[in-house]
Amino acid sequence: MEKLSNAFMEEVVKACRPYTAQGEVIDHIPGLDQSHATDLGVTIITQKGEVYSAGEDDCSFSLQSISKVIILLMALEDFGKEVVFQKVGMEPTDDFFNSISNLEDYEGHRPFNPLINSGAIATASLVNGASVDERFDRIISFLQTITSDERVKFNEEVYQSEIKNGARNRSLAYFMESTGVLSNQEAEEALDLYYRVNSIDITSLALAKLGCFLTNHGRNIETGDQLIQARHVRTVKAIMLTSGMYNESGTYAVEVGFPLKSGVSGSIVGAVPGRMGIGIIGPSINKKGNSVAGGQVLRMLSDKLKLNIFHD
Amino acid sequence: MEKLSNAFMEEVVKACRPYTAQGEVIDHIPGLDQSHATDLGVTIITQKGEVYSAGEDDCSFSLQSISKVIILLMALEDFGKEVVFQKVGMEPTDDFFNSISNLEDYEGHRPFNPLINSGAIATASLVNGASVDERFDRIISFLQTITSDERVKFNEEVYQSEIKNGARNRSLAYFMESTGVLSNQEAEEALDLYYRVNSIDITSLALAKLGCFLTNHGRNIETGDQLIQARHVRTVKAIMLTSGMYNESGTYAVEVGFPLKSGVSGSIVGAVPGRMGIGIIGPSINKKGNSVAGGQVLRMLSDKLKLNIFHD
Amino acid sequence: MEKLSNAFMEEVVKACRPYTAQGEVIDHIPGLDQSHATDLGVTIITQKGEVYSAGEDDCSFSLQSISKVIILLMALEDFGKEVVFQKVGMEPTDDFFNSISNLEDYEGHRPFNPLINSGAIATASLVNGASVDERFDRIISFLQTITSDERVKFNEEVYQSEIKNGARNRSLAYFMESTGVLSNQEAEEALDLYYRVNSIDITSLALAKLGCFLTNHGRNIETGDQLIQARHVRTVKAIMLTSGMYNESGTYAVEVGFPLKSGVSGSIVGAVPGRMGIGIIGPSINKKGNSVAGGQVLRMLSDKLKLNIFHD
Amino acid sequence: MEKLSNAFMEEVVKACRPYTAQGEVIDHIPGLDQSHATDLGVTIITQKGEVYSAGEDDCSFSLQSISKVIILLMALEDFGKEVVFQKVGMEPTDDFFNSISNLEDYEGHRPFNPLINSGAIATASLVNGASVDERFDRIISFLQTITSDERVKFNEEVYQSEIKNGARNRSLAYFMESTGVLSNQEAEEALDLYYRVNSIDITSLALAKLGCFLTNHGRNIETGDQLIQARHVRTVKAIMLTSGMYNESGTYAVEVGFPLKSGVSGSIVGAVPGRMGIGIIGPSINKKGNSVAGGQVLRMLSDKLKLNIFHD
Repeated sequence: MEKLSNAFMEEVVKACRPYTAQGEVIDHIPGLDQSHATDLGVTIITQKGEVYSAGEDDCSFSLQSISKVIILLMALEDFGKEVVFQKVGMEPTDDFFNSISNLEDYEGHRPFNPLINSGAIATASLVNGASVDERFDRIISFLQTITSDERVKFNEEVYQSEIKNGARNRSLAYFMESTGVLSNQEAEEALDLYYRVNSIDITSLALAKLGCFLTNHGRNIETGDQLIQARHVRTVKAIMLTSGMYNESGTYAVEVGFPLKSGVSGSIVGAVPGRMGIGIIGPSINKKGNSVAGGQVLRMLSDKLKLNIFHD
Repeated sequence: MEKLSNAFMEEVVKACRPYTAQGEVIDHIPGLDQSHATDLGVTIITQKGEVYSAGEDDCSFSLQSISKVIILLMALEDFGKEVVFQKVGMEPTDDFFNSISNLEDYEGHRPFNPLINSGAIATASLVNGASVDERFDRIISFLQTITSDERVKFNEEVYQSEIKNGARNRSLAYFMESTGVLSNQEAEEALDLYYRVNSIDITSLALAKLGCFLTNHGRNIETGDQLIQARHVRTVKAIMLTSGMYNESGTYAVEVGFPLKSGVSGSIVGAVPGRMGIGIIGPSINKKGNSVAGGQVLRMLSDKLKLNIFHD
Repeated sequence: MEKLSNAFMEEVVKACRPYTAQGEVIDHIPGLDQSHATDLGVTIITQKGEVYSAGEDDCSFSLQSISKVIILLMALEDFGKEVVFQKVGMEPTDDFFNSISNLEDYEGHRPFNPLINSGAIATASLVNGASVDERFDRIISFLQTITSDERVKFNEEVYQSEIKNGARNRSLAYFMESTGVLSNQEAEEALDLYYRVNSIDITSLALAKLGCFLTNHGRNIETGDQLIQARHVRTVKAIMLTSGMYNESGTYAVEVGFPLKSGVSGSIVGAVPGRMGIGIIGPSINKKGNSVAGGQVLRMLSDKLKLNIFHD
Repeated sequence: MEKLSNAFMEEVVKACRPYTAQGEVIDHIPGLDQSHATDLGVTIITQKGEVYSAGEDDCSFSLQSISKVIILLMALEDFGKEVVFQKVGMEPTDDFFNSISNLEDYEGHRPFNPLINSGAIATASLVNGASVDERFDRIISFLQTITSDERVKFNEEVYQSEIKNGARNRSLAYFMESTGVLSNQEAEEALDLYYRVNSIDITSLALAKLGCFLTNHGRNIETGDQLIQARHVRTVKAIMLTSGMYNESGTYAVEVGFPLKSGVSGSIVGAVPGRMGIGIIGPSINKKGNSVAGGQVLRMLSDKLKLNIFHD
């Protein structure tokens, strides 16, 4: 088994960077464009707190779908498992992350799970706070606390773009209003909160810290404070394994074998039980929405460091 | 944490047996009828070979869908991962296990994964042997070897019933012929092999041994022989976690948290990494096809024995 | 063949009224409630201008889905066939009238046809006018002109209810924005216009006049003015035949055999080529959305008066 | 309005033949190949018995989907409307003619209508006869009687090809067995009968006679014998209008406006109420399965001869 080191990290990035050529950078998110097509940044933080990093680990891009993990953690802590999973299921789906058809078919019109768009909007209605402002402040404070990375901040420009290009998500929210999953006010507010959390800038270091927080059962890795109950973190990790990588989740469960969540900005967070958190930034994504080079990094790390939970 | 013992097992069965009342015994499989409605048998075999058992662990019912795990193990060993996953995907689906719609929609018309009916039929075309007889002999011999339970045997009556009630599976097989996933001869033979493997009688002890074989990375737990390569067993376990419990797979990943596969005869096999194999017989199933009391047993074992892999 | 007379009309209403018991009055539209459960009003106006009427022909309820016919007539007249059918198809669908799934699947995400909700919203974006007010004024004036029934007027209370209960339609509109069928402004305005036209009160007399206008190839039956070009009226009638009666359109094409359009308020407009316009009010509807007694009236009229176009 | 004459027919064929270049000849049906790519034959028989013809009206190709009309006529005559429409619906569908998904979703798993593959197979189970041979003999005799064209005969080579390439239809048949629409024996026999009727060779003259038979309310145009009851013929024509041209049926209802049925061999039969039967052979078909040049012929005939039933 390979030993973790910055040299090893450099080697991984070098071996995987060519895969960036197989993807495309999404073109409608401010801050992302072709100039980042070959970017690849990887950071690992071990359970003991050692940090290893290589590549463009100084980039920051918006959270996008990784927001779903944060929102779910908050909703579980605020309302508990029972309430959350009355609004949303915990089953993987074979439809696309922004599918609306499955809301039309599925029992009680609940979203299949909290890691698809409809599910994340439904979950966003279950974050405490007197206003959307207050709810968002709680979320970004939480994220800043567990990452202690000052580059983690709200990106107004991305937020405006989320609103502007948000017709599909509005359609999902109103559909859920029509079936009684959300009230009208809940729909409007959940949508706004969702757009905002999607618009938080994140780095590979901060993602690795998030991964580490999950591996660490919801305790702040620096202070040891239990910020989210361990049983909620366990729930989130299980859903990440079955549904975290869009329509490639099953493949990643086989090939990589630990909880992951990706976003269309090409970011990925990974949580390896008992071992480490992993943060990846790699904006060239494939048609399923996952970073191509990032996926390759994960396969290589899993293989060389024996990280697959189905190994033992 | 609870300590494993036969007394503890008795306690679990006692606590969970009332849940049998929430399910129904399937009525078209020979050997299964209402007289078995309250049956519940549970056997655990630890990695060290200790056996714990309680309830109706002397019953034997046909494998039904658990056959899919055996067929996949054989196909991977015979043809390798690449060939198998050209014919079948590894993604979870939200459609029913016998769905045909998803063959109409999904890329290349491949079945989503090997643990739904279409996927198992496709996989059954990838088991070596000069004839269906020979292919079946290899499968049942393998199963008898790893379970060394003489009650594991072919049930002709169930097989005849599988053929008679097999129109949906024939429909799936011919659909795959029509899209080029299978040739005509492959379709006919795969179907026959699939019916036969479904018709093998199994016990909770044999299921626990199968679970133990998976936990033991494909080595015979008695002789230590490597019968299936470890990397194939890893693949099978990952797919069991995302897709082993029909449309409740995601929920079981959260609530129980280790690889499982259920059958409509109410049987379940479980493989707890580094710990144990679990075999359950509980014929009263819910509408999703899973043993109600068996599911309750799994939740209780996972909880009391800390078996959930997302725990650590 | 039966001869048309008021006595015959009374007989038809008497024979069909008992069928009202098989339906339910929709409960969320102002003006409609259980007190109207047994209402049944039928008016026929022949090509020569003779009027025959029976039952509760003095009731007025909101247009609901019959609005789709009016909007389509205006859009065709304003923008022509080519432009209209770039935004919306002319194919019948087996999905429900408020389905959103079909927008996800169908080529170019166009609504299947202008007589389902998504299609009517798309079509509403193609009515000329400097503002929604102006566009609505043109539509209601047109309707008042061809019906010369002073009871045809805007119902503010229904409109407020349409907005309040309009989440599904908003969801459809935003979905179409997301796929480029409508711009954001078009979506908002089309939705508002659609709600307004749905909220126009109509009577069986006015519906019969509308039917007569269609039979009369777009000429005002009183003044003879050509208000809509004949070829557009022909298009509308063909689509009414294949898609005018929700998911029973095919059955009505067989059983009744002339162009129809129904609304969930239990109203139906019919246009019998060369013969007559028919207006029906019968608020007890079945699960498909069609007036049960109204449907029976149509079958009886078609049969007794030999109105089925496939007869000859 | 244009006057019918052979010269006019020649003109139509000349104007429409270039459209053959926009289609493709299907490549797996014996007798059809690229050498027929520019073929276009049109025959019209008026209600009075006048015959007009132009183009390659001497070609004969297999019936393919037009068989569905013949089978439906026979089933209605043999079992009556009630029995037939318990097995199959009368609603248009937006799915493809060989779709299996809709059997999974639709109420009672009935095929949507008798003019899609599943519906035709179900209908084929409702043709009287002691054996498939006898049932087929009745059908081909009927067709030979109403067409009195000796080129109408069974094509063994096409039949063998139907069986060989028939996996999708077998899949549909077994699916219907699995849902109880057909018994096992019914499924096997219906499938065989369906393959056989698909394999009958037909000419544009024979198709025109079939159209004329439909226009003539089920009376043999030569002898005047009522072979099929008029009310059954009316039913068939209505379903042809809503569902006869695959997923372009709605468009043809608008553009052409009379009952039609097409087959993938590029044939079309048309029945113009009170006027004429039309037979077209034009093997270059579009992606929806309809003859491109044949469709153009229909639009031109409808326009020039004022055949659209929504005209009046």
